[in-house]
Amino acid sequence: MKLALIGFGVVGQGFARILMDKHAELQDLSFDAQIVAVATRSRGALYRPDGLDIADLLNAIGQGDLRHYPDAPGLQRDWNAERIVRESNADAIIEVSPTNLQTAQPALDLFRLAFEHSKHVITANKGPIALAYADLKERAGRAHRTLGIEATVMAGTPSLRLALESLQGCRIREARGIVNGTTNYILTQMESGMDYADALAQAQQLGYAEPDPTADVEGWDAASKVLILSTVLFGKRLTMDDLDVRGISSITAADVRDAAAAGERWKLIAHVTPEGGSVQPTRLPLTDPLAGVANATNAITYDTDLVGPVTLIGAGAGAQQTGFGLLSDLLAIHRAGH
Amino acid sequence: MKLALIGFGVVGQGFARILMDKHAELQDLSFDAQIVAVATRSRGALYRPDGLDIADLLNAIGQGDLRHYPDAPGLQRDWNAERIVRESNADAIIEVSPTNLQTAQPALDLFRLAFEHSKHVITANKGPIALAYADLKERAGRAHRTLGIEATVMAGTPSLRLALESLQGCRIREARGIVNGTTNYILTQMESGMDYADALAQAQQLGYAEPDPTADVEGWDAASKVLILSTVLFGKRLTMDDLDVRGISSITAADVRDAAAAGERWKLIAHVTPEGGSVQPTRLPLTDPLAGVANATNAITYDTDLVGPVTLIGAGAGAQQTGFGLLSDLLAIHRAGH
Repeated sequence: MKLALIGFGVVGQGFARILMDKHAELQDLSFDAQIVAVATRSRGALYRPDGLDIADLLNAIGQGDLRHYPDAPGLQRDWNAERIVRESNADAIIEVSPTNLQTAQPALDLFRLAFEHSKHVITANKGPIALAYADLKERAGRAHRTLGIEATVMAGTPSLRLALESLQGCRIREARGIVNGTTNYILTQMESGMDYADALAQAQQLGYAEPDPTADVEGWDAASKVLILSTVLFGKRLTMDDLDVRGISSITAADVRDAAAAGERWKLIAHVTPEGGSVQPTRLPLTDPLAGVANATNAITYDTDLVGPVTLIGAGAGAQQTGFGLLSDLLAIHRAGH
Repeated sequence: MKLALIGFGVVGQGFARILMDKHAELQDLSFDAQIVAVATRSRGALYRPDGLDIADLLNAIGQGDLRHYPDAPGLQRDWNAERIVRESNADAIIEVSPTNLQTAQPALDLFRLAFEHSKHVITANKGPIALAYADLKERAGRAHRTLGIEATVMAGTPSLRLALESLQGCRIREARGIVNGTTNYILTQMESGMDYADALAQAQQLGYAEPDPTADVEGWDAASKVLILSTVLFGKRLTMDDLDVRGISSITAADVRDAAAAGERWKLIAHVTPEGGSVQPTRLPLTDPLAGVANATNAITYDTDLVGPVTLIGAGAGAQQTGFGLLSDLLAIHRAGH
């Protein structure tokens, strides 16, 4: 399978590194993938129909620009993302550019173009899925191609494959999840006595939180995953305005102590039902599997008609973890024999 | 898809009821299944090439014997399981007879016969999988048929599909699980102050524990799942003699209090690595996702190279839950287009 990477930041590089490191193991699964194109917004682009060398790619981007990639026969350096989607020999587009939750662009138009050109689309980009999942899914179906979205919620922890494939035949009645690692890390630190400001500072020091932590701590990142879960699980397209979103910045050390005294824990819970969704700090009893989810780990509970609650706990971020999420969609295509 | 049920106890009936109740939903997935045969050891057998009526089947077995099923054109009442496998028009055998961990018979021979006759085999029976998974998998492959085993470990909670499909591409380094609900229920009761004997009595009263609770409380049921996980995950066939198995009958109320004082909990942990396996009562810190698994719920943590630990928590028993495990294997065959 020939792949074109649109975006080559930490996630794209993480994905490429897995393909390189796991080459032999993947061949044991009769899965052979080759990167033929990489496009970035400001650090160059490469296309070579016979394949690019991953070590050289990582080396070039490590030096700051893909123009450091060595010359090779047939190498093109001036194709942009759109031309790569239109004219390259790639079978699948791996799209890992930054999320835009207002317009989903430029990814959204690229996805549509990819399906027009009979290419699979695998993405870690929340914007196009939150805004246009049903439309994209329909276009993928018409083109007999796959739209792979596992990496958009909980990185490589297979939260969407669990709901859409493994639990197929069950009706999912609701989903409740811890889908933002930063806030869960802060709340876990507060459990051991830290106040909010110190816990946030520590999360920033460790790289879990951005210098401007608003998107995480005010619940907007979790909310973007509520939008995805709503459209994927229940076929209901919501916008941020439809959601009741509260973050954790108003949770105090005293709140955390009060909860602990009652045998409970505060968690930032993303909640989705067929009727709508919310993000709210919630006190959970310790008997709830989500209460035990510590540090930056993510988790989701699907309440189902046939087996009751099913909870999946695992990583929710990370270059390698998200890279695996992308790979897992490719392997699903491979298993299905396309 | 035409199905033959071998065994028609609570699990087989649970499965049949799901097919009946979910008929419309399953048709929305373009999945149409029909029960054409049911064989029991001492309560009769039925075969009708054009299909049996599920409500009539449940009604007949509710009266104690399949001979209460009403007469119908083409109905055969004297075919045994072997003849059904050999001569019926079933596409898949749903085998839910009692587990025999010594010989795996009579199921093992029936499975081999089924593959010879190009039928899929879906089972909730631990014996043949613990004893002969590799051989059966190979026969299934040669016959281009599927061996479905999801229901053998955590009922309908997709523990094996998670490992074998959703996490494909990761290397699983070890599995640690709570795979026996009875013992976890007893330990949870002991957390709230009950002693072992009272907690066991309560589990028996609620039907979680058998009148002779040995297989559960001494760890043998969990050990049978270790055998399955070892052969399925690591290609290593173990026997009970290879395992270090201890149950929970020697755990005292004082042990439970000591652990709680140290911020820990006793759990009966099934542990499997490429080197071997064990079942041992283990003190877990509360930060371990398995520590929060309460009552009769089951859970498993796979430690993976690419995404780290991934934990799945859900039901581990029950007629409907196990019935869904069987259905989920059929739906996987359907998705794969066979």
